[in-house]
Amino acid sequence: MVQLDINIVSTFMTLKITDIQAPIASEMEEFEKKFRSFMKSKVLLLDKIMNYIVKRKGKQMRPMFVFLTAGVAGEITEATNRGAALIELLHTATLVHDDVVDDANYRRGFFSINALWKNKIAVLVGDYLLSRGLLLSVDNGDFNLLRIVSTAVREMSEGELLQIEKARHLDITEEVYFEIIRKKTASLIASCCAVGACSANANPETIEKLRLFGEKVGMAFQIKDDLFDYGTQEIGKPLGIDIKEKKMTLPLIYALQQASWLEKKRIISIIKNESNKPKKVAEVIAFVKQSGGIDYATATMQQYFLEAQQILYTFKESKYRNSLFQLVQYTIDRNK
Amino acid sequence: MVQLDINIVSTFMTLKITDIQAPIASEMEEFEKKFRSFMKSKVLLLDKIMNYIVKRKGKQMRPMFVFLTAGVAGEITEATNRGAALIELLHTATLVHDDVVDDANYRRGFFSINALWKNKIAVLVGDYLLSRGLLLSVDNGDFNLLRIVSTAVREMSEGELLQIEKARHLDITEEVYFEIIRKKTASLIASCCAVGACSANANPETIEKLRLFGEKVGMAFQIKDDLFDYGTQEIGKPLGIDIKEKKMTLPLIYALQQASWLEKKRIISIIKNESNKPKKVAEVIAFVKQSGGIDYATATMQQYFLEAQQILYTFKESKYRNSLFQLVQYTIDRNK
Repeated sequence: MVQLDINIVSTFMTLKITDIQAPIASEMEEFEKKFRSFMKSKVLLLDKIMNYIVKRKGKQMRPMFVFLTAGVAGEITEATNRGAALIELLHTATLVHDDVVDDANYRRGFFSINALWKNKIAVLVGDYLLSRGLLLSVDNGDFNLLRIVSTAVREMSEGELLQIEKARHLDITEEVYFEIIRKKTASLIASCCAVGACSANANPETIEKLRLFGEKVGMAFQIKDDLFDYGTQEIGKPLGIDIKEKKMTLPLIYALQQASWLEKKRIISIIKNESNKPKKVAEVIAFVKQSGGIDYATATMQQYFLEAQQILYTFKESKYRNSLFQLVQYTIDRNK
Repeated sequence: MVQLDINIVSTFMTLKITDIQAPIASEMEEFEKKFRSFMKSKVLLLDKIMNYIVKRKGKQMRPMFVFLTAGVAGEITEATNRGAALIELLHTATLVHDDVVDDANYRRGFFSINALWKNKIAVLVGDYLLSRGLLLSVDNGDFNLLRIVSTAVREMSEGELLQIEKARHLDITEEVYFEIIRKKTASLIASCCAVGACSANANPETIEKLRLFGEKVGMAFQIKDDLFDYGTQEIGKPLGIDIKEKKMTLPLIYALQQASWLEKKRIISIIKNESNKPKKVAEVIAFVKQSGGIDYATATMQQYFLEAQQILYTFKESKYRNSLFQLVQYTIDRNK
């Protein structure tokens, strides 16, 4: 087993996304250009929205995962470009649909599609984006890529539905929590990596290995995200939103497992009946901290992170592998 | 050119859907059984919703179009089954998404998914259904079917968006109206027929011919639907809903083209400012009738219907062709 030092994390804290991108800078530039022209539509309203979506684009983490994994698996090909576009179209469709789902009014500081154009248009634009992605794959015969991405769509919607069904059950188990986050979050990053490997014409074992790498990164990412709710970063963000919404995540699930029968009863009663009171929410957060819920979730996150690293280190050293390692660090060390 | 008699329509008015289905009865039964088992999910919430969707299923017109077209084009194959499932999954996904879009609380007499489980779940279930359809095609290598259906998804969402953008413009042209209904309605029936032909291993010309047949049926179907708003059937249905929503359809578009400048101004002012008053809506309906808008739209519908028939009659006589002809009649002669 490769010896891995978790403290290495801190050395990368100052890295910028542009530095990480360096080995694939020209590919990413080319990709963005192509993607932008691909998003044009003859329907005026659609073209307006597409422009708006392209403008508000984020850090392009997903295409980066695709390109870097392709580099690690062998070589970046023309199919890598299409794979990245397919993932980005799917991700954008999901974001647009999420705007309906979350009733979010803001996303990345812009008004969401939903707030500006209402639910109706959001759903239609999401469907349109999905169909564009499909046609891109079908027209190029990228059926393996399509299988990977279709599986991701299925898992993501299943995961969200599972969350709706289960995450507010106060007796949710760790096992169900892991299944939810594996499907709703980890499957997309897993697909990015599988698509990258597949586009590099890697063999099935390599594709599966890199898919698993992405899945572990995704698990670590979501646990990190859930930890924010318990104030693990001093960034003045409002805490306890999940608690308020009665959403059970790992720190709380673990803490309740450890609690005495009486304590468990008290905490569950707060979550059920008083989660709208800030003082009571603070009480739950304090309970989770004291019961070791934060430490347990942090350790679990680091374990996933380590396992991801271990997989990555079975590939030969390269600029792609280094950058992919940095990208994982960046993804997990983010402060929001 | 084959001589076609439009009056033949009336002889079929008493036909029941089960009679039309006769030549494909066993295939349809088999299909429904397979489809139902395919819809099962391990996620409990999803399984509940799927059950509910299967229960509220309509007359299965789309699978019938697929199976009958396959019969007309050559032979019903295993791929015809999958093609019908793909279309039905897509159509169901669209219905579920439409529930969000239309904010409909009822559909076919049941509570819609939307009303029962809210927007959030409706969008996710729609996405889930799309992904199931995709995987079914990808796993069976049905890439030509997938191309046809992806194109339909694109056109349907484009058509709906075009309608949002244009249909409330009071100066909409016939050309734009036809483009909207071709995309939002006709493309699905066109796809059913193309999928049927494709699943029968027909050559590209035959596939295109039957696609065009379906498109013409779809055009006639939508014009018929738009005519209902003007009371062309005495079924006590509320009239003038499109007018109230300022949605411009063929009868009104034509009537406005024929009107004097003054009359046009008067009608447009009603639609703009007084379309919430039943008396004023009745005034618009009367204007459309007097200006020949109903007659014009009816004649246009019949023209599409005739053209569809003409295409169908280039295929050799068979039980499938007869049933397909009856199905078209049934589709167009429905009273709601």
